[in-house]
Amino acid sequence: MGATIIAAGGTLSRAGGYGAGMASDEMHSAGEDGVRNHGAGQRSVPAGASRPLGGSARVLIAVDAMGGDHAPAEIVAGAVSAARDRGVRVLLTGRPGQLRPLLARYGALADVRIVPAEDSVAMNEGALASWRRPRSSIAVACQLVRRGQADAVVSAGSTGGVVSTARLRLRPLAGVLRPALAVVLPTRPGPTLLLDAGAVADPKPEMLVQFAQLGVAYAQTAFGITEPRVGLLTIGAEPGKGNKLARRAYELLDADPPHGGLPISFIGNIEGGDLLTGKVDVVVTDGFTGNVALKTLEGTAAFAAGQLREALAGSWTARLGALLQRRGLRELAERMDAETYGGGALLGMEGTVVIAHGAATARGAAAACVLAADLAHGQIAEKIKERLGPARGGHFLRRP
Amino acid sequence: MGATIIAAGGTLSRAGGYGAGMASDEMHSAGEDGVRNHGAGQRSVPAGASRPLGGSARVLIAVDAMGGDHAPAEIVAGAVSAARDRGVRVLLTGRPGQLRPLLARYGALADVRIVPAEDSVAMNEGALASWRRPRSSIAVACQLVRRGQADAVVSAGSTGGVVSTARLRLRPLAGVLRPALAVVLPTRPGPTLLLDAGAVADPKPEMLVQFAQLGVAYAQTAFGITEPRVGLLTIGAEPGKGNKLARRAYELLDADPPHGGLPISFIGNIEGGDLLTGKVDVVVTDGFTGNVALKTLEGTAAFAAGQLREALAGSWTARLGALLQRRGLRELAERMDAETYGGGALLGMEGTVVIAHGAATARGAAAACVLAADLAHGQIAEKIKERLGPARGGHFLRRP
Repeated sequence: MGATIIAAGGTLSRAGGYGAGMASDEMHSAGEDGVRNHGAGQRSVPAGASRPLGGSARVLIAVDAMGGDHAPAEIVAGAVSAARDRGVRVLLTGRPGQLRPLLARYGALADVRIVPAEDSVAMNEGALASWRRPRSSIAVACQLVRRGQADAVVSAGSTGGVVSTARLRLRPLAGVLRPALAVVLPTRPGPTLLLDAGAVADPKPEMLVQFAQLGVAYAQTAFGITEPRVGLLTIGAEPGKGNKLARRAYELLDADPPHGGLPISFIGNIEGGDLLTGKVDVVVTDGFTGNVALKTLEGTAAFAAGQLREALAGSWTARLGALLQRRGLRELAERMDAETYGGGALLGMEGTVVIAHGAATARGAAAACVLAADLAHGQIAEKIKERLGPARGGHFLRRP
Repeated sequence: MGATIIAAGGTLSRAGGYGAGMASDEMHSAGEDGVRNHGAGQRSVPAGASRPLGGSARVLIAVDAMGGDHAPAEIVAGAVSAARDRGVRVLLTGRPGQLRPLLARYGALADVRIVPAEDSVAMNEGALASWRRPRSSIAVACQLVRRGQADAVVSAGSTGGVVSTARLRLRPLAGVLRPALAVVLPTRPGPTLLLDAGAVADPKPEMLVQFAQLGVAYAQTAFGITEPRVGLLTIGAEPGKGNKLARRAYELLDADPPHGGLPISFIGNIEGGDLLTGKVDVVVTDGFTGNVALKTLEGTAAFAAGQLREALAGSWTARLGALLQRRGLRELAERMDAETYGGGALLGMEGTVVIAHGAATARGAAAACVLAADLAHGQIAEKIKERLGPARGGHFLRRP
């Protein structure tokens, strides 16, 4: 799957960190001495269980330092930046021999813990890697969350590998049929959340209703929208347009409250052309369609940028013109750049998992850390459980 | 469905008309005296049957003059332009009372026949209109093709209305399970065909294989490519990636020759990000995914253009810069403009149906007429029948 995520997060300008910056005396370097139950006093119950997190209690993010095209150097730089500039508490999983010199470069050896993981999942490895590599850096990060030793995971590894590892190592939230991958589209003035962006290729209609609830919880937590507007991605505005899955999902979403759970503000069908218009806050679709739409969006933006570059370099007057426009064009490039945002988030697990762009540099990795802290701090797992309502006993395995 | 088609055609620069321009003495104005078997000497067998069409025998295009946001004025202007500038033989279906003054404005009353159709399908009417309105301008245009009195249909009406009318009024080609909507993406240097773009929301895997054959026939006819490369749109490059439909379609396409019919050059899976890279000549997908991808592509291009406009108007230096770049930017706008291309084509019927963009102006309508003539002249129906091979007797209704 590789670099599938264009953009996510969208709370960077509002988040403002989780405290007045990272006080180094709060952090302990575990060096290579393995997993420590860091901060266990604050988190005496398992991750994902209902925990009161006051404004001052800060969450801890387990960063897979070995995942991504530019790992570990850029990932470490991003994690240190998130810690120093945004007050996010982070730890790194990966090969200490590689990570310690990088931390030393930033003088952060004393500030950021390393939890050793000698194995890692390559970018071109698929979902099977999650079974084959129980000691990979992403598996260790997930295990930390599972044991309550961290609150969220950040990885820039391949989407397929991260999703399957998370689904293997983390528990699904009670009542969640399948977790969904949520990504934020860079609409203006507010962001739009698209889910599922590729976790479930053949979902049931009931799962799409759950995706809506996951998306509403995310939009409330990360965007601060009280009543997010939800739209169903299909191929016509009128009810009844679409394939069988979309038509059935429409009926379920249109019921009040939709298929159990809390009521949602369902505004109906939307089309591909509405994804970037800000018409809705949450776009619900199956993982196949969502992934194709997301990559089409990325590809078209890249195509347009390439065409523009060509047009602006066509003649000396055009090149002079581009010089005069450099500020505006730079701002535009920044706005369209996935790295300004955080990353995709796998929703519906006990513990938030943020998947940064595979090509993430330090800036993208830092944004993903901030997003993960944002979601964990906002207790998105609790919000999701509340929204879905009491788990119906359809599947004993899914009971907590 | 409305204005769903971004761009199609792509043969404008090569087509060069079908003869040395429209000799007015070849054309007869039927006025309001109804359908005449115009040119019956050339076309003594029903449309769609094997007919030898030499370079000099010119096809006749039935233009639905009442379909589209800017009908009938822009459609009439486009049809006249296609006839005059590109040598395409056209007739108009619609209300003579409205069409005659328009033709008179261009001095084309004697050149372009009008076939009366007092009814028309509004842009917001859906598929049901095809049953309710047997005397609509689009229904009459299809009937002309069915009776062998025209070779192809052009309409800028709503995609849903045109597709359902065509499927009701025209015969499917022998052996074709379901017709598909094909649109051309403005990749460079060569165009890429995407199908299905919305005709069949829930196809069977076998239909996707047929779509590949329809697409190959189109690319051979309109792009002049001997052996078009075919890709399957899905969510990962490796075989086995995708939903159930895509995975099964991959197996069928990968067989040699694929599911009966002539061999195709199947290069494997492609992703949404590959749509505009020119990696393949023909992209095969189901109508739901194809329509979402197409509208996402359109929407993203519009979004990028809007962002660019904003960036270029940000300061006086930027505005001055834009002035210096006006030629390059104008060329860029033209390249991204759907109207430069022809329209979508419904493939797999006896008689080509080209669906222009709902917002088509004269330029878009003219391009659609040229594309329709191009396809009909290239005997795409015959090519498709040849590619699919002898019809297997799976369904007696589908036999000719």
